[in-house]
Amino acid sequence: MTQRSAPRHFLRLSDLADREINDILDLGARLRRGVRGADLVNKTVGLLFFRGSLRTRSSFEVALNQLGGHALNLNANTDFWRLEERSGTVMDGEAPEHIRDAAAALSCYADALAIRPALAGNSWERDRKDTELKAWAEHSRVPVINMESALWHPLQALADLMTLRDALGKLEGRRLAITWTRSPSPGSPAVVHSILLAALRAGMNVSLAHPKGFDLEPSVMDEAHTQAESEGASLEVGHEMDAAARGAHVVYARSWWPLESYGNPTLTASRLARETGWCVDERTMALGEDARLMHPMPVRRNLEASDEVLDGPRSLLIDQAANRLHTQKGLLSLLFRPS
Amino acid sequence: MTQRSAPRHFLRLSDLADREINDILDLGARLRRGVRGADLVNKTVGLLFFRGSLRTRSSFEVALNQLGGHALNLNANTDFWRLEERSGTVMDGEAPEHIRDAAAALSCYADALAIRPALAGNSWERDRKDTELKAWAEHSRVPVINMESALWHPLQALADLMTLRDALGKLEGRRLAITWTRSPSPGSPAVVHSILLAALRAGMNVSLAHPKGFDLEPSVMDEAHTQAESEGASLEVGHEMDAAARGAHVVYARSWWPLESYGNPTLTASRLARETGWCVDERTMALGEDARLMHPMPVRRNLEASDEVLDGPRSLLIDQAANRLHTQKGLLSLLFRPS
Amino acid sequence: MTQRSAPRHFLRLSDLADREINDILDLGARLRRGVRGADLVNKTVGLLFFRGSLRTRSSFEVALNQLGGHALNLNANTDFWRLEERSGTVMDGEAPEHIRDAAAALSCYADALAIRPALAGNSWERDRKDTELKAWAEHSRVPVINMESALWHPLQALADLMTLRDALGKLEGRRLAITWTRSPSPGSPAVVHSILLAALRAGMNVSLAHPKGFDLEPSVMDEAHTQAESEGASLEVGHEMDAAARGAHVVYARSWWPLESYGNPTLTASRLARETGWCVDERTMALGEDARLMHPMPVRRNLEASDEVLDGPRSLLIDQAANRLHTQKGLLSLLFRPS
Repeated sequence: MTQRSAPRHFLRLSDLADREINDILDLGARLRRGVRGADLVNKTVGLLFFRGSLRTRSSFEVALNQLGGHALNLNANTDFWRLEERSGTVMDGEAPEHIRDAAAALSCYADALAIRPALAGNSWERDRKDTELKAWAEHSRVPVINMESALWHPLQALADLMTLRDALGKLEGRRLAITWTRSPSPGSPAVVHSILLAALRAGMNVSLAHPKGFDLEPSVMDEAHTQAESEGASLEVGHEMDAAARGAHVVYARSWWPLESYGNPTLTASRLARETGWCVDERTMALGEDARLMHPMPVRRNLEASDEVLDGPRSLLIDQAANRLHTQKGLLSLLFRPS
Repeated sequence: MTQRSAPRHFLRLSDLADREINDILDLGARLRRGVRGADLVNKTVGLLFFRGSLRTRSSFEVALNQLGGHALNLNANTDFWRLEERSGTVMDGEAPEHIRDAAAALSCYADALAIRPALAGNSWERDRKDTELKAWAEHSRVPVINMESALWHPLQALADLMTLRDALGKLEGRRLAITWTRSPSPGSPAVVHSILLAALRAGMNVSLAHPKGFDLEPSVMDEAHTQAESEGASLEVGHEMDAAARGAHVVYARSWWPLESYGNPTLTASRLARETGWCVDERTMALGEDARLMHPMPVRRNLEASDEVLDGPRSLLIDQAANRLHTQKGLLSLLFRPS
Repeated sequence: MTQRSAPRHFLRLSDLADREINDILDLGARLRRGVRGADLVNKTVGLLFFRGSLRTRSSFEVALNQLGGHALNLNANTDFWRLEERSGTVMDGEAPEHIRDAAAALSCYADALAIRPALAGNSWERDRKDTELKAWAEHSRVPVINMESALWHPLQALADLMTLRDALGKLEGRRLAITWTRSPSPGSPAVVHSILLAALRAGMNVSLAHPKGFDLEPSVMDEAHTQAESEGASLEVGHEMDAAARGAHVVYARSWWPLESYGNPTLTASRLARETGWCVDERTMALGEDARLMHPMPVRRNLEASDEVLDGPRSLLIDQAANRLHTQKGLLSLLFRPS
């Protein structure tokens, strides 16, 4: 069962070629229409959650089941223990096991490992390195799939691309507004990093809006500007939701932490408290070009977006959620296709 | 996968017609003898537990598996987060997600949702409304099955009806004693509400006994009296276990909270401490007519019922537990039968 | 589904005859080469974890799945509640349910129950009795499989025997060194008890090394000496890792609590702090006869064994982990073979 050649991991969307992404989206669409996918009988994917999950856990397990495969659910908070990730240390601390050994052992049982790593949460300098996820990838003998790290959420990006394609047809040249929203419990910027690069790669023109001090990870922004240039797409960054929404075909809303005060809850709360507004409502949407709303959920109603928009015809949120299932079935079919 | 017409929920036994209950019990009996049930391959039922469970969780998952289906287990305490249930609120509090959105998303992945909602536990006026369960039913696009709310436990009622039918044959005119028992950790009255109405609906004469101050939910008692009248069955309520047990064919034992002091642990503990006795023993059983004992478990031995009765031939407890599996397979077969 | 004749339990390796162990190892080897095993379709094994697990949980669930069966995972910490194990008590304490009733109910749903009991942890006199496991075995109507109790870990012993056989061929007359290692979080001596008796039963000569005051359970040592005598094998006990490793074909490393100070964390920590050394490194291994290293994991790197040995060609740790899967498939095939 273990693979002796280096396994192929899926840690971020750029791990896939354009053709592969298209294959996954096309296959996802066929599976959605009822076509049978790959046969994953006797295949197990270990799902390791070091943080909570509703949609990812459910859609991934159901995707596996519908293909005949098996989800081995491991919840790090209740099922096992803390893991060491540093190399060469004398392990006399809290962690009784090294990721190296946990990954090697699980590689004996599972045909792939899907991982949502914990965030240390006290230093963006540390978390931005995705150290834990990379340690799993380094030591696993089977493919590792990122189920959302500090930096990337490639499974959400696949579902979002499918949703965009369904809504807009050709993506090249269409306008995507990505806007920060206010939440007392923002998430990591992983989803936004992923959709930003995915949209630019597809040739969309992107306008990004967030309050001052809520900049995305600098290395990702650098990559985004380079991507925009190479695709001939535009990327504008500003500090007004309305300006970003103007002329947009799709408004993508999502809250994220101010990376400046990452690991400082008091300062973060005070920063968040100042940012009133930043709620997408019908007035915002009316600034776009027959604009649709996307958001990866969970969404805080009437704080991030109004009930009116969320429950109206502009919302694509449930399509995004549904497409998690279809694109993940596409991905798994590709991953386990007979070579 | 989502159903566009209104899904059919199973929140309480009265959601089923007499004929449907009979179909489930008949099919359950055939499945118990080894007849194959419906084929649920590729069907997923999401099991959402907001409180602990042993029998319900195990019997439901095995029922699904034996029919070829798949249980998606979601434990709210460890897998995800708090959900908002009120409409129209600005969600700036603790809950990051609304039941409306969680239900819509899970409806993309599961073919039904079985739910054991949390009890807020501080106000019977609140919990008696089954607000959370009803919110799931309102927003889910697939059938919602109640796995025990504050008011009802219809899955237990189905197993109990099968057990009664096995033990007594025809139920009409037979005597059922329902008696409160003492426990330091009583449960909600849901099981008792459900068996009370189910037995009356089947034409059984019911005598109910509990200490003063331990009345069941008034709206359920109103419904019970109406039900008794329409079936020509008798319903007597008293405060002596012995009086209830006299002439009974079955004694159904169960502890429940005093609803008067619901949400007040100190007052509840003091109320419970006063109620010594209320333990079913051989002497109690001898008052009946060749009486059998039922109890939904978990049962506190030698406090609610004596070892002698529980381990003797009068006990139907294990039959009740076994019939959870068979009746749930019957219910699932009905739910997913090709229309 | 329930079996009326007494079920056959697997609580320790001596519950199996020599021929049965050989059958399991042979079948495990064939399954590893890709031969199909027993068909466990519609069979459920309940996995009850009262303590955390990574390898056992994963390998057992995947073993079941690969044979077509179903693992019903029950995590006692999150899914249900405390269970009473004493007979005849008035259950007015914390536990709302008796193991007797939980076992009987689960026997209605599962075809076997695999259990990792909790350790009370405050008295070795109590824990050495494996009371909880024995209560499950007494009351279950289906086979009970020990997934590691205070005294025994027979599933690990099966995998270890397969690993030894792969590495050494014939076991009779070969030398096994079992050595204590230092860890701030040692485990129970269950693994060591099991491999000690298994190796002697296979005719291996065993040298056991541990610091003074870290003696294994006396009743197990008595059994070991008797076993050695009846097999004509040698069993030496000493207090130097090097002396034990000299001439060994396999070094088996594992940390365990000092049973003298069991239940006294302060005294245990102070005892452990004194035992510096006890780390297996290349120098230790060079004392053996082309020696290989075994350890059941989790292993604390550079404290119990050096990176150099663990990552080098002497290590059999991943083979041990992989063989958990194969031997458990062998065991399950034997357990559920048509009679």
